[in-house]
Amino acid sequence: MTTAAAKSAETEDGGTWRFPASQALRLESGATLAPLEIAYKTYGALDAAKSNAVLVCHALTGDQHLASTHPMTGKPGWWDRFVGPGKPLDTDRYFVICSNVIGGCMGSTGPASTNPQTGEPYGLAFPVITIGDMVRAQAMLIDALGIDTLFAVIGGSMGGMQVLQWAADYPEKVFSAICIAAAPRHSAQNIAFHEVGRQAIMADPDWRGGAYELAGVRPEKGLAVARMAAHITYLSEAALQRKFGRELQRDGLSWGFDADFQVESYLRHQGASFVDRFDANSYLYITRALDYFDLAGQHGGVLAQAFQKARKVRFCVLSFSSDWLYPTPESRDIVRALNAAGARASFVEIETDKGHDAFFLDEPQLDATLKGFFSSTAQARGISRGLA
Amino acid sequence: MTTAAAKSAETEDGGTWRFPASQALRLESGATLAPLEIAYKTYGALDAAKSNAVLVCHALTGDQHLASTHPMTGKPGWWDRFVGPGKPLDTDRYFVICSNVIGGCMGSTGPASTNPQTGEPYGLAFPVITIGDMVRAQAMLIDALGIDTLFAVIGGSMGGMQVLQWAADYPEKVFSAICIAAAPRHSAQNIAFHEVGRQAIMADPDWRGGAYELAGVRPEKGLAVARMAAHITYLSEAALQRKFGRELQRDGLSWGFDADFQVESYLRHQGASFVDRFDANSYLYITRALDYFDLAGQHGGVLAQAFQKARKVRFCVLSFSSDWLYPTPESRDIVRALNAAGARASFVEIETDKGHDAFFLDEPQLDATLKGFFSSTAQARGISRGLA
Repeated sequence: MTTAAAKSAETEDGGTWRFPASQALRLESGATLAPLEIAYKTYGALDAAKSNAVLVCHALTGDQHLASTHPMTGKPGWWDRFVGPGKPLDTDRYFVICSNVIGGCMGSTGPASTNPQTGEPYGLAFPVITIGDMVRAQAMLIDALGIDTLFAVIGGSMGGMQVLQWAADYPEKVFSAICIAAAPRHSAQNIAFHEVGRQAIMADPDWRGGAYELAGVRPEKGLAVARMAAHITYLSEAALQRKFGRELQRDGLSWGFDADFQVESYLRHQGASFVDRFDANSYLYITRALDYFDLAGQHGGVLAQAFQKARKVRFCVLSFSSDWLYPTPESRDIVRALNAAGARASFVEIETDKGHDAFFLDEPQLDATLKGFFSSTAQARGISRGLA
Repeated sequence: MTTAAAKSAETEDGGTWRFPASQALRLESGATLAPLEIAYKTYGALDAAKSNAVLVCHALTGDQHLASTHPMTGKPGWWDRFVGPGKPLDTDRYFVICSNVIGGCMGSTGPASTNPQTGEPYGLAFPVITIGDMVRAQAMLIDALGIDTLFAVIGGSMGGMQVLQWAADYPEKVFSAICIAAAPRHSAQNIAFHEVGRQAIMADPDWRGGAYELAGVRPEKGLAVARMAAHITYLSEAALQRKFGRELQRDGLSWGFDADFQVESYLRHQGASFVDRFDANSYLYITRALDYFDLAGQHGGVLAQAFQKARKVRFCVLSFSSDWLYPTPESRDIVRALNAAGARASFVEIETDKGHDAFFLDEPQLDATLKGFFSSTAQARGISRGLA
């Protein structure tokens, strides 16, 4: 149901949905967020029955530009490999929606947005948000777009956590839920790595207590270090070894602190290119949302309780054998809880040495598994093969 | 053989050995280091036959104060649990020596020492050093102390790498070699984590290109972040989960960026206490030495070649099942090379969930294994049970 007061999208395939102040987002912390803006992209076309909408939830540093050129980097979208005409998530068949999470920095309301109380960027006055809040904002968008039920909600990493939250909070709006390389809660090690990143940002004098925008500076060095530390967790030890080993940048060692090894140069590049497209405060808020995530904790400590009302949702849970950020046992915990709740769940652990980031990469078994899942689920949903 | 020109130790149980300029340390880089000072501690007494000397090699952030009160922190030595009268490394029986590595910050010549060329602290003018250089300096000390052959060289982590280097470079001076939780070379992931730490230090404006001492400042924030990132690698995921899980510091979440979770508070403490006892430039130089370490690379790419002359050395190689910094397969590589070289090697993988740092911690199987190894090796060496 579209709300009359809500402004429509800027373009046919997405834009920014601006909710009026009357439609404030209630946050888990007790705070409210208004005005609320959600930047999103769509690919493909909604069918007449509005039965073919797929919501893709992005990961920590992802955004809505999943299958088209990124406006800041000029590179293909982060899931261009997977989403498009004839691709595993086939935009000739499905209407794909992806929105920037709240707290993000690609158009949705976040710490860089204007604080209506002050007329200046929120900075640390932005309220702490949760995965549940991100999902509640997405539900407002889906509602505004006039979609009652999503054919699928799909995402990897933090996207997978949003998928689980969707199934828990809006089971009646979700026909199928695909959770890739995720976990039902952040572990101590997960929190520890994020804390290192946050401390790196906050140690940068250009962070200015979060008010760097006003000062016309950016904590680029701190943010780059945060990204470098996190990036190591996205790759398996074997993948790093295979890609780089101890290969040198030049002939011989520098006997200094230049990037001697290719892996050093690679990491430095990861840090440097990240700061061109990401906001430091957004990094703080989104990592915090991840650390706070504990789906069982929301349901009396019993994960199966989260899925009590989601028995009709068709779940597909996928993990990667070499993912040490959210290792397979965490996906198994999800599957066990789904089984205990009596929900429909299929589970595949994909053998790969690529680590957590395998869901972005060329991984034929992932594609094959998801093609099969989409196909059988579409049949159950009564979606025709082609759109007339 | 003591050199007349070398000054003797300040005290009976250690001190600082000052080598005259004529005894410069030739470095692998081609540079030389002079004057050279080596700070060391001893425990127990050398027997008449000089047959009971044990050299303990410390890890990245360790020092010579292994079994007595640390002069800066006031805490027990880092291996107090293991070294002392009646303990597994029994100072009633063995003469235990431990020296601060060159490049370090506890008295041996390092980047904070005075550069004789300028009369100011070396800073980045200090030459890049290697594990081989550290060992060569130790050999000068052992020689100065009048010891021909060490009954044992023992160490964990970087200490274990020094043990391997000792056996490769001075096989005639080593009766037995005990390498704990180490690797024959730094992997891409090892280098990556160190590079994050170095970038964190160098991103701190108080680092001042390494010349912070002259400026009267210290890059404490950067060094703390480096320590936090590294510390995660010293513990297993299971140990972190067991110790901290998602336990909170207070009742309820702060909905902010304070340390909500105990693991955050613990990590922040690790960072904060580290900067009180360690020097940022030393951290750069020692991590670099580790990254450069590649024992096979020193021997035409064939690890077994490193041990060709060490066939008479009695090796004991130990790993911890949950160590993901230097995982068991890396210890197995060492053992395979020792076998291929025809050296005597015993190998034990100790089952523990404590991770890499298990060698500092109460680990009964480690103690039992090493007690047995010391006992049988002492018999072979003809060391009597008690010192008369």
